[in-house]
Amino acid sequence: MSLFRGKRPVLRTLFVLITVMLLVAGISAQALAASPKYVFLFIGDGMALPQLNAAEIYLHARESDDPGVRKLNITRMPHQGLTTTYAADSFITDSAAAGTALSTGFKTNSGVIAMDPSKKESYETVAEIAKKRGMKVGIVSSVSIDHATPACFYAHEPSRKNYHEIGMQLAVSDFDYFAGGGLKKPLSADGKTDTYKAAEKNGFTVTRTREDFLALKPGIGKVFAVSPELDGDKALDYAIDGQPITLEEFTRKGIELLDGPQGFFIMVEGGKIDWACHANDAVTTIKDTLAFDEAVAAGLEFAASHPEETLVVVTGDHETGGLTIGFAGTKYSTYLDYLGGQTMSFIAFDKVLDEYRKTTPPGDAKLEDLKEEIEDAFGLVLLTEDERKQLELLAANGDRKAQERLYFALTKEERQNIEKAFVRSMNKEEERAGDNETYLIYGGYEPLTVALTHTLNHKAGLAWTTYAHTGVPVATFAQGAGAEQFAGYYDNTDIGKKLINAVGAKALTASR
Amino acid sequence: MSLFRGKRPVLRTLFVLITVMLLVAGISAQALAASPKYVFLFIGDGMALPQLNAAEIYLHARESDDPGVRKLNITRMPHQGLTTTYAADSFITDSAAAGTALSTGFKTNSGVIAMDPSKKESYETVAEIAKKRGMKVGIVSSVSIDHATPACFYAHEPSRKNYHEIGMQLAVSDFDYFAGGGLKKPLSADGKTDTYKAAEKNGFTVTRTREDFLALKPGIGKVFAVSPELDGDKALDYAIDGQPITLEEFTRKGIELLDGPQGFFIMVEGGKIDWACHANDAVTTIKDTLAFDEAVAAGLEFAASHPEETLVVVTGDHETGGLTIGFAGTKYSTYLDYLGGQTMSFIAFDKVLDEYRKTTPPGDAKLEDLKEEIEDAFGLVLLTEDERKQLELLAANGDRKAQERLYFALTKEERQNIEKAFVRSMNKEEERAGDNETYLIYGGYEPLTVALTHTLNHKAGLAWTTYAHTGVPVATFAQGAGAEQFAGYYDNTDIGKKLINAVGAKALTASR
Repeated sequence: MSLFRGKRPVLRTLFVLITVMLLVAGISAQALAASPKYVFLFIGDGMALPQLNAAEIYLHARESDDPGVRKLNITRMPHQGLTTTYAADSFITDSAAAGTALSTGFKTNSGVIAMDPSKKESYETVAEIAKKRGMKVGIVSSVSIDHATPACFYAHEPSRKNYHEIGMQLAVSDFDYFAGGGLKKPLSADGKTDTYKAAEKNGFTVTRTREDFLALKPGIGKVFAVSPELDGDKALDYAIDGQPITLEEFTRKGIELLDGPQGFFIMVEGGKIDWACHANDAVTTIKDTLAFDEAVAAGLEFAASHPEETLVVVTGDHETGGLTIGFAGTKYSTYLDYLGGQTMSFIAFDKVLDEYRKTTPPGDAKLEDLKEEIEDAFGLVLLTEDERKQLELLAANGDRKAQERLYFALTKEERQNIEKAFVRSMNKEEERAGDNETYLIYGGYEPLTVALTHTLNHKAGLAWTTYAHTGVPVATFAQGAGAEQFAGYYDNTDIGKKLINAVGAKALTASR
Repeated sequence: MSLFRGKRPVLRTLFVLITVMLLVAGISAQALAASPKYVFLFIGDGMALPQLNAAEIYLHARESDDPGVRKLNITRMPHQGLTTTYAADSFITDSAAAGTALSTGFKTNSGVIAMDPSKKESYETVAEIAKKRGMKVGIVSSVSIDHATPACFYAHEPSRKNYHEIGMQLAVSDFDYFAGGGLKKPLSADGKTDTYKAAEKNGFTVTRTREDFLALKPGIGKVFAVSPELDGDKALDYAIDGQPITLEEFTRKGIELLDGPQGFFIMVEGGKIDWACHANDAVTTIKDTLAFDEAVAAGLEFAASHPEETLVVVTGDHETGGLTIGFAGTKYSTYLDYLGGQTMSFIAFDKVLDEYRKTTPPGDAKLEDLKEEIEDAFGLVLLTEDERKQLELLAANGDRKAQERLYFALTKEERQNIEKAFVRSMNKEEERAGDNETYLIYGGYEPLTVALTHTLNHKAGLAWTTYAHTGVPVATFAQGAGAEQFAGYYDNTDIGKKLINAVGAKALTASR
């Protein structure tokens, strides 16, 4: 302590005080510097804790017989929160109201895109604010880019169903990168306006092949990259069915094109997690969640090379399906191995079934005809009594293949349910939907397919309560500059507010 | 900057360096000082996010027609985490393995009380460590005090079913306060040992009336306070059915008796949230969750007067029932108002039904006979076709009471399900349980009662997937000294480790 041996104690005290003040000021400066230059918002549509957890258990179960989870890129992120999702007019939200909350920080009614509940006032979105402040902006989705969630970042419409109007707001926007799905209604009602042409006229380079997509390089200007293959809703196919360009690739390209001194705001939606949950197809849900997780990994990888300047936030807009890890029939057991047998999505199997229906005279239809297709698609084995007896003999003698086939064989009750669904699926289209009670069982989906995914899910120990969304809170994860403010239990509008604050603060720092 | 105008830059630099070092040391000292003198662990058995959220929506819906949640004392706590719950031998855990993880920081097999999976080694519990380090220790539960969760803090047994052996470990323990439920097997198999007497011999004051309980004052010594009324499992009645001493009162008394210079560790379990979830009775679940939340409030109130010295942690041991806020039949809507009509627990209604069954000749039983009882218990209205027409007329003319009765009236399908369950409930006991398929519908519970709670829950928009536990992560909340370490996504063993660290660190601080 020889340093303090001087004769001027007042000066010494002042010295210490000022040093402390400088240190405190230093901390504030650091906090300001922590305002991110690069902001990622990843939205798993329909993705809450059960979806993430199902994917974690699935990954773990493939590697180990012991109970456990293998964490995702998402769930390894350091800060984590719980988020309520209700809309202004309904406790169970839709993606439009939830997207508006995340993009603008305001509650609105279900169905409304970035406008107030009376549908008069437009709410400014975090993407628009980022653009105004000079950042580059990218919007990526695995569903059509005019769908509710992506639309909430660049459009303002009283109804999410105004697809053409939403698309036209994309076409005239000054955002830098749109990518993923296509447009549901590119042509105006009178056929005079084509959104794709309008976008090109406004300077967008539109790509529709993998080659053109890969050839995109920084400096190209505004880009609208559409998947070379689209389903009937202009979305990417499910990850389980294969995709010519993945969500991860669309995300990486966005980063490559938008990286620069202005910084960027990129929103990436895993949109078909929700759709798979609506159909109660757990494996397709898990595979799309994992594909979404890969897109998040791309963001985290970028963040790793710009740790002080990047904020990555991952959330869901709501839960879909009432998924849980536990079913009355399996009680305390889970058998995730069953899920490994599924090789295609419910919608891909619908097509197989549709082909069979078209080519089979109504009176001739037999479930046995689809035996191989069912085993190929879901791993579920249909046995006659004789086949079962034979297999049981072989299995008793230690035949592993027989043991495995028996494991995946349908029980009598399961078989009955599936037969019932098959009969309904063979009905004419207008008779398939059925009454309220039938809705509870099949949710308006192809009865045989739902019966098969339900059977598989239940055998594995997973179950659903609805074909719609639910109202349970979602989980939010964050990493990087300012990420700690995403810990806690808060509302989805708070995410919008915090993001707006983040891009606002960023710009303020930059403008000084 | 005149202070730096001296002629000795080296000295100046040293000065700044040392000041910085002192500040850093100050921060470490503060971290140590933050080790808590008082530690609360609240465990909601079977309570995960859906249970908490259902209670929040229920509270909000009673006050407002707009969508929203009214936060609980628990969910207002500042730090929050997500916690995986799997056991060593099963992804879906039981309360013994989960309790062991929380009390010791180790995974074990389902059914094992604070021992390793081979059932040879005992794991030291946070409560035992706290006691060893000189803290007072209290164990409170709304179920029998020898039940798995409380047992995991003071006993070591290969099986949770060894109730007498567990109770005897309570009797000989040096803990200071046991309170809530009674003992399931106070008498040994040979009838020679009585756990209550053994406890008294070991210095415990055992109370069994509200008067004696209220009369307990600090300085009384070791206490075992048993609820004056116990159900068949020696647990408190459900909160909805009324309790002579509430979980909150047992908690407050614990605080009053244990407060002192040594500090304390108190574990409080809301044990019947789980039981109500097993039976898929949402209202009873919500009411027991709210009663548990009041007990937490007692802890938070104490913490408010000792903010620097108190750590409060609230978690669940697992989810039960696969509860969610969303049902296929109600799609995007929720009608929480329906829940307001339930006035008693499923088990209280079972008794009403049992009385009817006993006094009614099998051939004479009619659902109509129980019309009033069903309306009293669940608010559900059974109407004949004539009654319905009459009410509809009145309702059309603006009669509010008629409108309300119609709102709560069963639909034709609901009525059919309930009739079916009634017929099954009128069967002899051995026939009621039924086969696998019946288990899926009634879960081994009284068929009519389950059909009624399911109907009410579904009308409100809540649904369940199982009568057992599920594997989804639970939510953990924390407040006070060291609470920030309970943010994040971690395993239930981490809670045990952090708590042990907290009481260890506390004792270390005290012993210096």
